[in-house]
Amino acid sequence: MPFDINCDMGESTDAFRLDNDDAILDYVTSINIACGYHAGNHTIMHRTVRNAIRKNVHIGAHPGYPDVEGFGRRNRDFSAQEIYNMVVYQIGALQAFVTVENGTLHHVKPHGALYNQSANDIEKATAIVKAVYDVNPAYILYCLSGSKMATIAKEQGLLVYEEAFSDRNYNDDGTLVSRLEPNALIHTEAEMLVHVKGIFTTNEVMSVQQKKIKISAQTLCIHGDGPHALAFAKKIYELNR
Amino acid sequence: MPFDINCDMGESTDAFRLDNDDAILDYVTSINIACGYHAGNHTIMHRTVRNAIRKNVHIGAHPGYPDVEGFGRRNRDFSAQEIYNMVVYQIGALQAFVTVENGTLHHVKPHGALYNQSANDIEKATAIVKAVYDVNPAYILYCLSGSKMATIAKEQGLLVYEEAFSDRNYNDDGTLVSRLEPNALIHTEAEMLVHVKGIFTTNEVMSVQQKKIKISAQTLCIHGDGPHALAFAKKIYELNR
Amino acid sequence: MPFDINCDMGESTDAFRLDNDDAILDYVTSINIACGYHAGNHTIMHRTVRNAIRKNVHIGAHPGYPDVEGFGRRNRDFSAQEIYNMVVYQIGALQAFVTVENGTLHHVKPHGALYNQSANDIEKATAIVKAVYDVNPAYILYCLSGSKMATIAKEQGLLVYEEAFSDRNYNDDGTLVSRLEPNALIHTEAEMLVHVKGIFTTNEVMSVQQKKIKISAQTLCIHGDGPHALAFAKKIYELNR
Amino acid sequence: MPFDINCDMGESTDAFRLDNDDAILDYVTSINIACGYHAGNHTIMHRTVRNAIRKNVHIGAHPGYPDVEGFGRRNRDFSAQEIYNMVVYQIGALQAFVTVENGTLHHVKPHGALYNQSANDIEKATAIVKAVYDVNPAYILYCLSGSKMATIAKEQGLLVYEEAFSDRNYNDDGTLVSRLEPNALIHTEAEMLVHVKGIFTTNEVMSVQQKKIKISAQTLCIHGDGPHALAFAKKIYELNR
Repeated sequence: MPFDINCDMGESTDAFRLDNDDAILDYVTSINIACGYHAGNHTIMHRTVRNAIRKNVHIGAHPGYPDVEGFGRRNRDFSAQEIYNMVVYQIGALQAFVTVENGTLHHVKPHGALYNQSANDIEKATAIVKAVYDVNPAYILYCLSGSKMATIAKEQGLLVYEEAFSDRNYNDDGTLVSRLEPNALIHTEAEMLVHVKGIFTTNEVMSVQQKKIKISAQTLCIHGDGPHALAFAKKIYELNR
Repeated sequence: MPFDINCDMGESTDAFRLDNDDAILDYVTSINIACGYHAGNHTIMHRTVRNAIRKNVHIGAHPGYPDVEGFGRRNRDFSAQEIYNMVVYQIGALQAFVTVENGTLHHVKPHGALYNQSANDIEKATAIVKAVYDVNPAYILYCLSGSKMATIAKEQGLLVYEEAFSDRNYNDDGTLVSRLEPNALIHTEAEMLVHVKGIFTTNEVMSVQQKKIKISAQTLCIHGDGPHALAFAKKIYELNR
Repeated sequence: MPFDINCDMGESTDAFRLDNDDAILDYVTSINIACGYHAGNHTIMHRTVRNAIRKNVHIGAHPGYPDVEGFGRRNRDFSAQEIYNMVVYQIGALQAFVTVENGTLHHVKPHGALYNQSANDIEKATAIVKAVYDVNPAYILYCLSGSKMATIAKEQGLLVYEEAFSDRNYNDDGTLVSRLEPNALIHTEAEMLVHVKGIFTTNEVMSVQQKKIKISAQTLCIHGDGPHALAFAKKIYELNR
Repeated sequence: MPFDINCDMGESTDAFRLDNDDAILDYVTSINIACGYHAGNHTIMHRTVRNAIRKNVHIGAHPGYPDVEGFGRRNRDFSAQEIYNMVVYQIGALQAFVTVENGTLHHVKPHGALYNQSANDIEKATAIVKAVYDVNPAYILYCLSGSKMATIAKEQGLLVYEEAFSDRNYNDDGTLVSRLEPNALIHTEAEMLVHVKGIFTTNEVMSVQQKKIKISAQTLCIHGDGPHALAFAKKIYELNR
């Protein structure tokens, strides 16, 4: 079975088009569709759902904080109850487009600051896990590899895909190198391909301390924007076959 | 079987509370819950759904135009496709709260300018009818009595509740007296009760031309706001038993 | 010279009216007008400016976080630069309505979480002080009594009105009793009137530790909402003459 | 004196960057800055104002309908009073950034649907003219060449720049060929340069009926987006010297 290659989609607005979306669909196995809170809208959601079904790509809801201006990347101070409610709302909205197109919703992946702030915060992680479970216990939750959210989701009985990143360096303990560090990102395509190949074949990557480490991962995150996104997606897709 | 008495709910924000909501729930048989586009939000939706289920009141989605500022009452220039998408989105969002509370969604009633602009516009009415049908053909569509939307919905195979109003005067041909006319509204409670009793018992009202006319109606719209809303709701509730 | 009695205004929307506004204008000497970020809009701003000028009440801009949903009361994570920009924007917008009505803008008072988060945060306080000063060094800045912002504003050369509250208890050191404490608020009208009289006449209040303390204050904040707001405003107005 | 070459700017969001802005500034003499209603925000406004002042480019406010989702291009149903208020608000907001950067606001140009719906609607045009005049009678109003708004603005005593378009075809009567017609746009760069040269030198263009016609114009609108925008701007800039 090929590894899951995953990408965010449906983040355009009427004014700003991210035109790679259709092309990238050929090189991924799953996508996360913005649900209108941090990006996207009802019309883009519908179109993206229809295109994904046509290309046989798994569809996930991509709930975020209500923050179009900051693209859901700003930290926010929401209670667990509010987080539960905003996740239920957004899954429900996307689910309806999947229904009208006779598809199936496959997973949920929190976006941006919601993803980061909840990954290892027990209350927030529990709120997201419960929201997904209560809407439909068959949905898979995509979480940061090794996070508390992954553990909580498994305990709740959800199927979990732990996520690795194609362009991020790792520490010896399997955590991501902080974006505040100069070596947070893998910069050359050659290094990324070595890194990704390790994830695909043995679930191993080379840490920044030059140690071979295991990371638990069932899904690989790639980016759909940037000038080289499409070319890089093709190469990863070739690796994965 | 008692007549359906219906009221809009969940239109508060965190800053502005419409405090009658809980009390009014005792005197209605169905409510329409705002879905965040013209009013309400994910937290108010959840709370309102839970309260309605507890009191055994039928729950409807109340989709509107994306216009919190204008409360969804401003006319807008959306294509049929956009209207389809915004209705699907909003039904989906509310549906998810009904799911997590183990309830059932009963109906959909468009709000404000969406309701008015689509009632007799074939393209817009068809978009709403198709949206409801595609999400779930078992949902009832609440429409203006005698409207083209009612006809289109029935042809599509949807169950329809035609709506009468507790405080509006009617013309001889069964249409509402325009709000631009001085006699659009019934002003005294005594007259309203006579009017409502006619609707409940014989589906007849007295037109402004003083003719007894039939109106097709399975649901009566009452208002939850205003200083006398609660007292009036009680009286209508008594009439209906 | 009478003490400044100050109240927030213009916080309605088209859907939700705070109807006390016009009546309260008779009993205050200055108001803060919401600028569309946390509440209000261009039409309410214009109407409120016109009414205030007619009644000879001083007009202040009331900038808040961009958060209508949370009424600007949620903590947010904005940089000093963003805070500077959002304050400049909102002062500018209100200033234009004062211009078209041939009035003068008197002061600026930050709202809600922006007020609280910046009162004693040097970076944020400096951003607000600079924003006001750069737009017009003649504007008065209303700040929490004894706050770092008050000090920074004075150093910058702004005129400052330090603010006392009609319904809040104080600690021995002149700080407000936290809202997390049970005795944060003064509950009876009789106690409030004693408290306010102390502020008006000797700038002294009784602390919760029952010590008479001095608080530096040139403006008293009263509330325009709630069932007793108007009656209470009248009483304070009488005290002040 | 060189002809005014004008371009919209500051329409990015934090998530979507229109990166040509800085480069285009070298080839225009005036810009219109979005004021947050249809695009832009307080931080982008500030940055764009600062860059324009540095490059000695005239700054205009670019007020639009409150419609980020539709980029201010959707027709809306606002009263003249609301249009007056939204224009005052947006000019005021931009004006404050010009003030803090020690610049001068030069003009106002309505955006998108606000521009189109008001150009020849006497009530709406009057509302915009009055808004500009009341805020500052020294501001220049940019209007569609030959529009009723241009006439009303001149009668009010405003200085007017009538606008011609670098890529639009004209009818014999000097009106633009409707965008619904196949020949609305000039497609080749060579034709555009001939067209623009006519505007610059003799205020004459060739109509689609192949007649040489006069158009009154003191400003030429160019586009900052699209793959060839920058190259084309350079060529127009050369023509203009």
